[in-house]
Amino acid sequence: MNREDRYKHGMQVLEKVDGEAGQRIVDSLSDVSPELGHQVVAWAFGDMYARPELTPRDRQLVTLGVLAALGGCEIELDVHINAALNVGLVPSEIAEALLHTAVYAGMPRSINATLVAKKVFGERGLLPVSNLG
Amino acid sequence: MNREDRYKHGMQVLEKVDGEAGQRIVDSLSDVSPELGHQVVAWAFGDMYARPELTPRDRQLVTLGVLAALGGCEIELDVHINAALNVGLVPSEIAEALLHTAVYAGMPRSINATLVAKKVFGERGLLPVSNLG
Amino acid sequence: MNREDRYKHGMQVLEKVDGEAGQRIVDSLSDVSPELGHQVVAWAFGDMYARPELTPRDRQLVTLGVLAALGGCEIELDVHINAALNVGLVPSEIAEALLHTAVYAGMPRSINATLVAKKVFGERGLLPVSNLG
Amino acid sequence: MNREDRYKHGMQVLEKVDGEAGQRIVDSLSDVSPELGHQVVAWAFGDMYARPELTPRDRQLVTLGVLAALGGCEIELDVHINAALNVGLVPSEIAEALLHTAVYAGMPRSINATLVAKKVFGERGLLPVSNLG
Amino acid sequence: MNREDRYKHGMQVLEKVDGEAGQRIVDSLSDVSPELGHQVVAWAFGDMYARPELTPRDRQLVTLGVLAALGGCEIELDVHINAALNVGLVPSEIAEALLHTAVYAGMPRSINATLVAKKVFGERGLLPVSNLG
Amino acid sequence: MNREDRYKHGMQVLEKVDGEAGQRIVDSLSDVSPELGHQVVAWAFGDMYARPELTPRDRQLVTLGVLAALGGCEIELDVHINAALNVGLVPSEIAEALLHTAVYAGMPRSINATLVAKKVFGERGLLPVSNLG
Repeated sequence: MNREDRYKHGMQVLEKVDGEAGQRIVDSLSDVSPELGHQVVAWAFGDMYARPELTPRDRQLVTLGVLAALGGCEIELDVHINAALNVGLVPSEIAEALLHTAVYAGMPRSINATLVAKKVFGERGLLPVSNLG
Repeated sequence: MNREDRYKHGMQVLEKVDGEAGQRIVDSLSDVSPELGHQVVAWAFGDMYARPELTPRDRQLVTLGVLAALGGCEIELDVHINAALNVGLVPSEIAEALLHTAVYAGMPRSINATLVAKKVFGERGLLPVSNLG
Repeated sequence: MNREDRYKHGMQVLEKVDGEAGQRIVDSLSDVSPELGHQVVAWAFGDMYARPELTPRDRQLVTLGVLAALGGCEIELDVHINAALNVGLVPSEIAEALLHTAVYAGMPRSINATLVAKKVFGERGLLPVSNLG
Repeated sequence: MNREDRYKHGMQVLEKVDGEAGQRIVDSLSDVSPELGHQVVAWAFGDMYARPELTPRDRQLVTLGVLAALGGCEIELDVHINAALNVGLVPSEIAEALLHTAVYAGMPRSINATLVAKKVFGERGLLPVSNLG
Repeated sequence: MNREDRYKHGMQVLEKVDGEAGQRIVDSLSDVSPELGHQVVAWAFGDMYARPELTPRDRQLVTLGVLAALGGCEIELDVHINAALNVGLVPSEIAEALLHTAVYAGMPRSINATLVAKKVFGERGLLPVSNLG
Repeated sequence: MNREDRYKHGMQVLEKVDGEAGQRIVDSLSDVSPELGHQVVAWAFGDMYARPELTPRDRQLVTLGVLAALGGCEIELDVHINAALNVGLVPSEIAEALLHTAVYAGMPRSINATLVAKKVFGERGLLPVSNLG
């Protein structure tokens, strides 16, 4: 595959996982660092997300853990909480995954990520989250 | 103690330490992750803060160090700088504690935390901070 | 449940998830901070891991993401890569989960966590990992 | 040098590197932690930035790497992306440096820092960045 | 004060707080980065630790919180747990401070820091820690 | 380019920058996560390091900043301090770059990275570092 093919392939994966939210991040980079946008699409999605060794649902569980733990990733959590819903995780599972991060990354990381989930769930009419505690 | 008793006990500790600001965070979680709100109250405050091995004032000094060092904890710093004032630390001690974090966590973490302190002190009519450098 | 019951309940969960490795960490804390050992067992396992909202396998995927992202958690990764195997993740899925963290947390965090996986897999006769790359 | 001389010397270095943006941070600290403002000027700039062992341009490349990797340093990145331009780095080099951080610190840190660069470049009429990708 | 005076002043503060352990770190830097050793002594101790706005005991509580939260600071925790003992914190207070960090920085950071405390307490004949949980 | 070509191209870049040390990391991954080894070579080196927008020397300055700031990257710092020497940075510049990180990431990150530099410089007969402090 040449550079353009790799981008097209990655964009197909990105659209399935992240939908419009992922596209918006790539667009926002186009006038400052088109190469970063290219790498997000061609590498992160085309090379990494596309691999069949983990299901998309499993992959989002790992992603939620990483982003919550890092902190300061509110933009990316927004995209990937949407993505988690897109690939079959339900709100109570997402909330539980973010609750679980409190054990290892502490309460602030867990609270901050959960408040992003609240925003995303609200935008998609999924509040209140049921079947929890 | 059953689950409800643990929550009530934790809420008593939380009210003494964090006042309204802590309550607001718990409330904000109620429709997305009530269990996270429960754990903040029942575990973090009921089990951990309630322990007599450190005074509340000592505990807030540790908390300020941790939150400043983590970064991305502006919401929690707001709560806990208020808490620090509630348990007897004076503004110049809080500012000095946050200054001290610069040695180990660097200038940006120290500056960011200090700007949260500025906001809290301003809201409580405690600016300018006296007896400093 | 009283304090002792909460500990017993947590220990049952810990044994199922972490096996001996988790017990060793708790033991290592007994003469310096028995309360930390108690909280790991009674809270992290008894309260948090025991919740049915996520399967143990899902929970370990989140845990691997968090621990890899935090860095400096080699001791805990050792325990939880063992735990991941105990709850049904296979080596190629674990390796893939840790590979995936490279996208969000960078190559060093991914490499360091993968080298812990190599150690654990080696101890359990699971090298080389097949069905990869 | 006495305390005041060290401050004056540091302010001369700060003005050359950071311009007005650095001054604004120091000013914002004046009523809450004048000592932190003093240390930023007298120590960080007067003692550290002033050293001839690295050129100002080299120093900003290191700074960009550190600030992007830490995360949560948007205020400081704003100052130091301006500083990078002031000491001779061109927009495509800055964008490339921030792209490079993705390898080691992951995509979110790189994207967040790049979006700060976009803001700074926009304010200085430097968009779109040419000679990239 | 000139450069040499600042160093001498800092060394007096360092000796009081950190004792031999701090000196060993400075010595280890002498052939690779004598300026870093100088800054640790002249700035971190001479300028920052020497300030009277916080007692040495309070300052160590903040330091323990920062170092535990950062992770990967085992060398520095060793020095500063010794320092904490030198300035009047007792083992049960230190263990409690490190336990407290679990709430905000998660269990792994708390466990890792506590295991450094175990090492230091063991070297000083202070195990087992009494009056805990 | 196909997958194999991308790997070969990346390996040529890696050999020029990292020499044997980089190869050893890739080899150590071969039985646990050959895909991670592939991505380090084909993506990090073939796609990212190969780009001409920054000189190799500039790129290593950014890399040193990122790795020092992240913490827990001793393995990678070893490789990249060697790489920094390979692409033309001299020991006093590397030591100064790591000293500079203290301003933004704090003393412990700076000290830990500098001690890795001491090890690398020692192995290459470059101690003591001259023209410092």
